[in-house]
Amino acid sequence: MDVQALVFDVFGTVVDWRGGVAREAARLLGPDVDAAAFADAWRARYQPALDRVRSGERPWTVLDALHRESLPEALASVGVDGVTGDVAGELVLAWHRLDPWPDAVAGLTRLRRSYVLAPLSNGGVRLSVDLARRAGLPWDLVLGAEVAGHYKPDPEVYDSAPRLLDLPPSAVCMVAAHTGDLAAARGRGLRTAYVHRPDEFGGRQVPPASDPDADLSVASFEELATALGC
Amino acid sequence: MDVQALVFDVFGTVVDWRGGVAREAARLLGPDVDAAAFADAWRARYQPALDRVRSGERPWTVLDALHRESLPEALASVGVDGVTGDVAGELVLAWHRLDPWPDAVAGLTRLRRSYVLAPLSNGGVRLSVDLARRAGLPWDLVLGAEVAGHYKPDPEVYDSAPRLLDLPPSAVCMVAAHTGDLAAARGRGLRTAYVHRPDEFGGRQVPPASDPDADLSVASFEELATALGC
Repeated sequence: MDVQALVFDVFGTVVDWRGGVAREAARLLGPDVDAAAFADAWRARYQPALDRVRSGERPWTVLDALHRESLPEALASVGVDGVTGDVAGELVLAWHRLDPWPDAVAGLTRLRRSYVLAPLSNGGVRLSVDLARRAGLPWDLVLGAEVAGHYKPDPEVYDSAPRLLDLPPSAVCMVAAHTGDLAAARGRGLRTAYVHRPDEFGGRQVPPASDPDADLSVASFEELATALGC
Repeated sequence: MDVQALVFDVFGTVVDWRGGVAREAARLLGPDVDAAAFADAWRARYQPALDRVRSGERPWTVLDALHRESLPEALASVGVDGVTGDVAGELVLAWHRLDPWPDAVAGLTRLRRSYVLAPLSNGGVRLSVDLARRAGLPWDLVLGAEVAGHYKPDPEVYDSAPRLLDLPPSAVCMVAAHTGDLAAARGRGLRTAYVHRPDEFGGRQVPPASDPDADLSVASFEELATALGC
């Protein structure tokens, strides 16, 4: 592959959203709430909320605002009737405080020697910056849905990466733990690398070990760095 | 100042455009060309080229393309009738290979401990990434004209920083060696810090030592870090 830049899905691919949201929920809601079930319930409302933006039913809205809107239903699903505005705000910020998978920082640090690295997340710019500063993710820049004004898998998001990096699409590789994200990236001419993240859903749903349609399938960012000669 | 992010003008403020363009011109055009005069001549065509985008006379065009268009006139002004396409391409990339002022990396590295840092340049995203990777500029993200689709001092560029960082304008400080850039930023509610860069124009034109309208005036990024308690 004649790739010069790697762009990364973030939730599930770089960071453990379920563990991080559950950690913050346990801290903020107390021991009586099933924090992992709450994380799953909140995440279940993610795609439907994004769909309303993708379809044009509502104008561009940053993910923090969508998380805030879907929070009451997610809380209700685990028996919490309501929280103060301060707690709601802190819960929304849980998505800015997710821990990276154990191999992520070491792998990215190796990859950055030879490749331009950027998140290409549905999370907002500030969310990507907060995650990176907290975890030490060595991005060169922040790309993604908010920069493009569209949510993945809308083509505008994938197109924005080669455009802003002044590269042909085939010189950009999308890295993700989700085959749908990679298929959409491939549809716009990007190269693709699949990362197997068996713990994303806490074992309730195990993703495939590899993606036969991707240029590469790996089990960690360290393995990706090795495969790419870093 | 209750500032959480610092955004930086780049050409002249972070990097020495005149010295870098002259260095590359000397390398590519040989010793018979007055490389510093060529750098000045090329830069003199910068604001008029941007004005045609600012006025709406032409649609958004990235700076590399504007540099490419103004190159023949700049070459002619120093007696060079033409260059090959390869040399023209390399000359455009001179603007991606500028050295930072001696205090820049050390100052930014201190500032980044406490502040989110981003370039807010009229240079394109790829140019900002290339400068940063070459020089080790520790940006958290790349902001600027290409992300906003407008050239400074259009208000959209200044507005894009607090919007994408999810901060009030008064929590963002524009850092620049040019009083006009700071005045435009102040007009959008940003805080401002002036940096005195006496060598930007090779001594032919000496900027003021301070900007009485700015929140801070300093002589280096190290002094800025000290003033901001980093």
